[in-house]
Amino acid sequence: MDPKLAKLVTVDDFEAVARGNLTHSAYDYYRSGADEEHTLHRNRSAWTTYELWYRALVDVAQPDIRTTVLGTTLRSPISIAPTAYHTLAHPEGERATARAAADVGTLYVASTLATTTLEDVALAAPGAPRWFQLYVHTDRAFTARLVERAKAAGYSAIAFTADTPCLGRRCADVRNGFALPNGMEMANLVDIVPPDLREGAGSELARFMASRHDPSFSWKDFEALAKMCAPLPLVIKGIVRGDDARRALDHGAKAIWVSNHGGRQLDLAPATADALVDVVSAVGEQADVYVDGGIRSGTHALVALGLGATAVFVGRPVLWGLAAGGHAGVTRVLELLDEELVRAMRLAGCPDLASARDGLVRHRSR
Amino acid sequence: MDPKLAKLVTVDDFEAVARGNLTHSAYDYYRSGADEEHTLHRNRSAWTTYELWYRALVDVAQPDIRTTVLGTTLRSPISIAPTAYHTLAHPEGERATARAAADVGTLYVASTLATTTLEDVALAAPGAPRWFQLYVHTDRAFTARLVERAKAAGYSAIAFTADTPCLGRRCADVRNGFALPNGMEMANLVDIVPPDLREGAGSELARFMASRHDPSFSWKDFEALAKMCAPLPLVIKGIVRGDDARRALDHGAKAIWVSNHGGRQLDLAPATADALVDVVSAVGEQADVYVDGGIRSGTHALVALGLGATAVFVGRPVLWGLAAGGHAGVTRVLELLDEELVRAMRLAGCPDLASARDGLVRHRSR
Amino acid sequence: MDPKLAKLVTVDDFEAVARGNLTHSAYDYYRSGADEEHTLHRNRSAWTTYELWYRALVDVAQPDIRTTVLGTTLRSPISIAPTAYHTLAHPEGERATARAAADVGTLYVASTLATTTLEDVALAAPGAPRWFQLYVHTDRAFTARLVERAKAAGYSAIAFTADTPCLGRRCADVRNGFALPNGMEMANLVDIVPPDLREGAGSELARFMASRHDPSFSWKDFEALAKMCAPLPLVIKGIVRGDDARRALDHGAKAIWVSNHGGRQLDLAPATADALVDVVSAVGEQADVYVDGGIRSGTHALVALGLGATAVFVGRPVLWGLAAGGHAGVTRVLELLDEELVRAMRLAGCPDLASARDGLVRHRSR
Amino acid sequence: MDPKLAKLVTVDDFEAVARGNLTHSAYDYYRSGADEEHTLHRNRSAWTTYELWYRALVDVAQPDIRTTVLGTTLRSPISIAPTAYHTLAHPEGERATARAAADVGTLYVASTLATTTLEDVALAAPGAPRWFQLYVHTDRAFTARLVERAKAAGYSAIAFTADTPCLGRRCADVRNGFALPNGMEMANLVDIVPPDLREGAGSELARFMASRHDPSFSWKDFEALAKMCAPLPLVIKGIVRGDDARRALDHGAKAIWVSNHGGRQLDLAPATADALVDVVSAVGEQADVYVDGGIRSGTHALVALGLGATAVFVGRPVLWGLAAGGHAGVTRVLELLDEELVRAMRLAGCPDLASARDGLVRHRSR
Ligand SMILES: Cc1cc2nc3c(=O)[nH]c(=O)nc-3n(C[C@H](O)[C@H](O)[C@H](O)COP(=O)(O)O)c2cc1C
Ligand SMILES: Cc1cc2nc3c(=O)[nH]c(=O)nc-3n(C[C@H](O)[C@H](O)[C@H](O)COP(=O)(O)O)c2cc1C
Ligand SMILES: Cc1cc2nc3c(=O)[nH]c(=O)nc-3n(C[C@H](O)[C@H](O)[C@H](O)COP(=O)(O)O)c2cc1C
Ligand SMILES: Cc1cc2nc3c(=O)[nH]c(=O)nc-3n(C[C@H](O)[C@H](O)[C@H](O)COP(=O)(O)O)c2cc1C
Repeated sequence: MDPKLAKLVTVDDFEAVARGNLTHSAYDYYRSGADEEHTLHRNRSAWTTYELWYRALVDVAQPDIRTTVLGTTLRSPISIAPTAYHTLAHPEGERATARAAADVGTLYVASTLATTTLEDVALAAPGAPRWFQLYVHTDRAFTARLVERAKAAGYSAIAFTADTPCLGRRCADVRNGFALPNGMEMANLVDIVPPDLREGAGSELARFMASRHDPSFSWKDFEALAKMCAPLPLVIKGIVRGDDARRALDHGAKAIWVSNHGGRQLDLAPATADALVDVVSAVGEQADVYVDGGIRSGTHALVALGLGATAVFVGRPVLWGLAAGGHAGVTRVLELLDEELVRAMRLAGCPDLASARDGLVRHRSR
Repeated sequence: MDPKLAKLVTVDDFEAVARGNLTHSAYDYYRSGADEEHTLHRNRSAWTTYELWYRALVDVAQPDIRTTVLGTTLRSPISIAPTAYHTLAHPEGERATARAAADVGTLYVASTLATTTLEDVALAAPGAPRWFQLYVHTDRAFTARLVERAKAAGYSAIAFTADTPCLGRRCADVRNGFALPNGMEMANLVDIVPPDLREGAGSELARFMASRHDPSFSWKDFEALAKMCAPLPLVIKGIVRGDDARRALDHGAKAIWVSNHGGRQLDLAPATADALVDVVSAVGEQADVYVDGGIRSGTHALVALGLGATAVFVGRPVLWGLAAGGHAGVTRVLELLDEELVRAMRLAGCPDLASARDGLVRHRSR
Repeated sequence: MDPKLAKLVTVDDFEAVARGNLTHSAYDYYRSGADEEHTLHRNRSAWTTYELWYRALVDVAQPDIRTTVLGTTLRSPISIAPTAYHTLAHPEGERATARAAADVGTLYVASTLATTTLEDVALAAPGAPRWFQLYVHTDRAFTARLVERAKAAGYSAIAFTADTPCLGRRCADVRNGFALPNGMEMANLVDIVPPDLREGAGSELARFMASRHDPSFSWKDFEALAKMCAPLPLVIKGIVRGDDARRALDHGAKAIWVSNHGGRQLDLAPATADALVDVVSAVGEQADVYVDGGIRSGTHALVALGLGATAVFVGRPVLWGLAAGGHAGVTRVLELLDEELVRAMRLAGCPDLASARDGLVRHRSR
Repeated sequence: MDPKLAKLVTVDDFEAVARGNLTHSAYDYYRSGADEEHTLHRNRSAWTTYELWYRALVDVAQPDIRTTVLGTTLRSPISIAPTAYHTLAHPEGERATARAAADVGTLYVASTLATTTLEDVALAAPGAPRWFQLYVHTDRAFTARLVERAKAAGYSAIAFTADTPCLGRRCADVRNGFALPNGMEMANLVDIVPPDLREGAGSELARFMASRHDPSFSWKDFEALAKMCAPLPLVIKGIVRGDDARRALDHGAKAIWVSNHGGRQLDLAPATADALVDVVSAVGEQADVYVDGGIRSGTHALVALGLGATAVFVGRPVLWGLAAGGHAGVTRVLELLDEELVRAMRLAGCPDLASARDGLVRHRSR
């Protein structure tokens, strides 16, 4: 391993190095949350309001961290959430990320807003499991084309992001007038980028979404989308409420992904740890529940898995890895999280993930 | 828009600019709360102890933020609370504020303590909705005269402030010996200002109120006042208790305005967010409930509206707008809040204000 | 009023001035709490965990703050707790304090550990109400003599301090080797001060108490003491538990004084605000309940009175007043607190103290 | 007493001196907790979330702090938890610690990871009570040999550490590449230390444990161990759950030691104060319950004893004493804690430890 990376002991260490490698406005874009950033900060701190009431003297010689999501078994339950603009972090961008995911045997969810086409992402790691994250555009035909391309390129599920009828306001981006640098583009979307996108104040991405996203998209449309995606399963990402989770299943979703977009959309949305509890209690064993938001260590992941998540996703940690060391950086971040998870499971008396769901986690109410 | 104002992204940005434009003692007067300022600070932080459990996949193409208060439909539910002494902030004073309210289509509540006569305020924006905020003076005839003037000048309601039997102590004003600068006056009250008001230590306003306000005013008097105001409806401002809200309705109030005067009167009074819950549960659908105190963003406003407020009011944000950019500054602050509210409603899955009341807001108890 | 004192707006302002006037070790002695000072700090912050749900439109033209303790009516319910060593703060010492109490018409409780004899304290303000605070010494005959002297000098009650079987450890005093400076003495105790008291490390007062106080004193002894004090009523000071309060009444106490000695004895003892709730609910209307600890404003006092205290006492505020301005300083501190209380009662809708007990105060649990 | 030590008033004072005497990496090794150190910090702060509702007027002339653990009566209930590597702190290492324990009449639990053989520890204080702390090695024969040696050397119980299937990650040790300095060794384990232990990155101790500890050890093995230890009683250390405590008793444990290894193993494990409540309520009077973690004063110890612990143990405080002053330093730390405990019992109205269990301690929920 690159000796520089070997020195980094925590995800926060990676963030510090990444910060040094990134432009100010790219770092801000990655880091920020919406408005006053309450939800951003609570996402992380919420995991630590739960306690791990570990069990002693369980045989933990070989903790098994494998999980199965929609029929695919993953070597690790810590997967890669979709995030935009990876070439901002490193010239190899999404390709490097895809290869790292393949190396550690986890799932990569490619973003609609990637700076690499979904086909090139697929080519970078052909055999590895991958999902495509979808935003719905007013131009429904274009949306359909994206789904077809994802099918053709071997993606095994579509993750529809339901928390983004418009872009949340990240104050830093507005102040920085944040825009993609010359030479980078939203590679999947070149056909529909308005020609005058560069003009205007504030965040370029916010202007793009305001002009192209469809805020009228509702459950009926979702049901149609589920049909359009078939035979690929449709996952709904960005749910926080138990009742919404049930509604999603009724309208064709195959799994629920609890997320508030990393605190980047609605400020004062509940922390995902708390939302997870609500959703798991509504969904029961009926479908997979995933979660992301503020997970920065294997211990945080264990809390999430103990609360009932089938898998967890990390967004920014991958970006910090990518900016700190490209492909090797992402690999190392993912390995580090897995090592932390395995160690935490050993110390918690969990030989496998199912055992974590059996009264290990308690809310720290006292 | 003035490019300097366009750079200001939050109400707090406006406060920072305002602070630079104001004298030290004027800034202190606007900013301060009573005594140890517990209530001042809790007013704001209380909104963030509630969470927005947003709904996904609702058609939010055109969020409707209109509300109707006492029969008047407003383009925005974020209105202007009465605050004293606007010429301290900008030479155009209350006139500028009135025009800004008219521009964005919301309600302006003019203060008894304005530095512009209520007639001139009315002339500044003749067609716009306006209410007159009333303090009750020991000289009851004078009070009656104020009400008559407000009727004559086309005010459509009287908002009686019930939290000010005497002035709360704002330590900064006492230390600064705060007084209206030469050339400014309490324009509605020139007839009853004692000649020797300038003499004495501490806050001039506190001395004025001690000499002219009526601390014996009680429910019987309120009932008489309601009759005197007719046909104008009488709103009671400064209520925190559910039982007081019901008593007010029994004595002729047409609407309840939950307020603790921006934390400027009784320190350790409950935060208005919490008081709102008490009052809404006591009043039910029987009357409008409004609220002010610590609302600094559209997201805070959405919490208030979700807890059952028909409209919300902002005090200091308007003063920061006025001090930062006069008429244009106030307009921009109000627009900013409306934009934030619309965005938050989109992200929260609220096509209109009624939908926000349906389980969106939960107290963050876990 | 002395213009320097007139500038001081809060009790904390007095503390800042006092700090400048006192030697480092005297300031430390006055300020400190026991051990980690949890209880010291919680005493104050606990008052602010209660909220004042004020009532509007009550006639508060003349708030009546009088209270009656053991048959004596006081002009103010904010009285002076016994504290040791007033000549450390000002050459006039306890005499100045006694005169200030007389000026504002409140009660002065003189300490066993005064640096002025109890007879001289009485002479300083002959007509004013005064109690004598008693510690019980192993030499019971000496204790009896103190009680006789108090009777002879016109004290109207004995307040027995029950929280001091030995002295709590105040780390600063141990580090400073705190001792009374030359020329000052425990004037009531000269007969029993051990000749070698000056020798030894750590706090002189702790050594004194270890050698002279009686840690075996128990309820049986208390009952005997009550008889010895008769006809003077015996008040028990330093109670935090409801069951102890009832036991005290059963053994002859005439009133309960909730106190943890200003956080100077047992660290992690409950804040007195919380203890007050326990004691009031155990005692009901059967006896007066007083409280002290961390009260630094009239608003704090109103919380205490609203929770059911008949009177409140302040310790350190009086010392800060004395150190800042002698007799005038104490007077001003007491006036300030009374002004704050009257203002808070006006703003809270309380024409008298009884009305504060009727649902005004709620714990801030949300 | 050494005048330098006499100046140290609290355990924290000892830590400050120790820090100056230790190398950076030795200090880090002693101080650190696992990962984000939530559990490390909560261990200490949890004691202060409980309150001592003291009783007045109890005869506390001679508080009796004796306790009986597994048939041995100790002069003090504050005993010495097993900690590794005492020669890092002082050249006399574990010998000095053992003598100090003997001086104050408390129990010393010697660690498997001592830098002095268990026989030499025994020789240093032959008559004093001592237990041997055991880790279980993959080499079961070696483990058996350790038990035999402990029996032969007069240890009166075996304390099996159940929270260490592998070593928790202390980030500072990883960063420092922490290893035992030349000239020091794990004296009990020289036979099984791998020859290449010095090679490799990160913490040497983590590498050692990974290669020699047995993570498959489970309840069945524990039962066999209990038989092997007989006639010595087997204590289980590192339990946090009530159900695990009962399971341990069912499998042959004679007492339960609530511990999370000083926050050094599983981060987000519950604070031991809270775990103690769980365990005491499960175990009742059936067996002794001990506790360690974050106890830094006699007052903290009183909380633990009041919650039902038969004895408490301190880890780091002993190391600070040793580093600050060798044998005398440890003695002084233990005396200081006993003095604090006696004083707190006096002030709390506890003539003995049983009386502390009778409603003295309440959780600070309000
Ligand atoms: C810089 C950045 C870009 C993101 N872009 C997308 C995106 O294109 N599509 C999407 O569904 N989520 C996007 N997300 C949200 C992530 O999928 C994920 O929900 C979030 O990052 C999880 O929180 P964490 O960053 O705290 O791990 C983005 C997040 C970040 C930080
Ligand atoms: C500088 C200032 C002056 C005020 N003057 C009045 C007034 O004259 N009459 C009144 O009813 N309320 C007055 N208020 C209270 C406001 O109407 C309103 O209740 C409060 O400002 C709301 O809190 P906010 O400033 O946090 O939005 C004043 C508030 C401030 C800050
Ligand atoms: C410097 C000082 C000396 C004290 N001396 C005595 C005393 O001699 N007798 C006594 O009963 N209480 C004594 N107390 C406790 C006070 O009577 C009272 O309980 C406490 O000061 C109240 O808390 P406060 O200082 O926060 O108002 C003393 C307190 C202080 C601060
Ligand atoms: C430096 C250090 C070394 C330790 N070594 C051991 C050990 O060898 N065996 C063991 O069972 N516990 C060990 N512990 C844990 C202690 O026995 C005890 O559980 C912990 O220190 C109690 O917390 P405290 O340090 O906050 O008092 C160690 C703790 C520290 C701080």
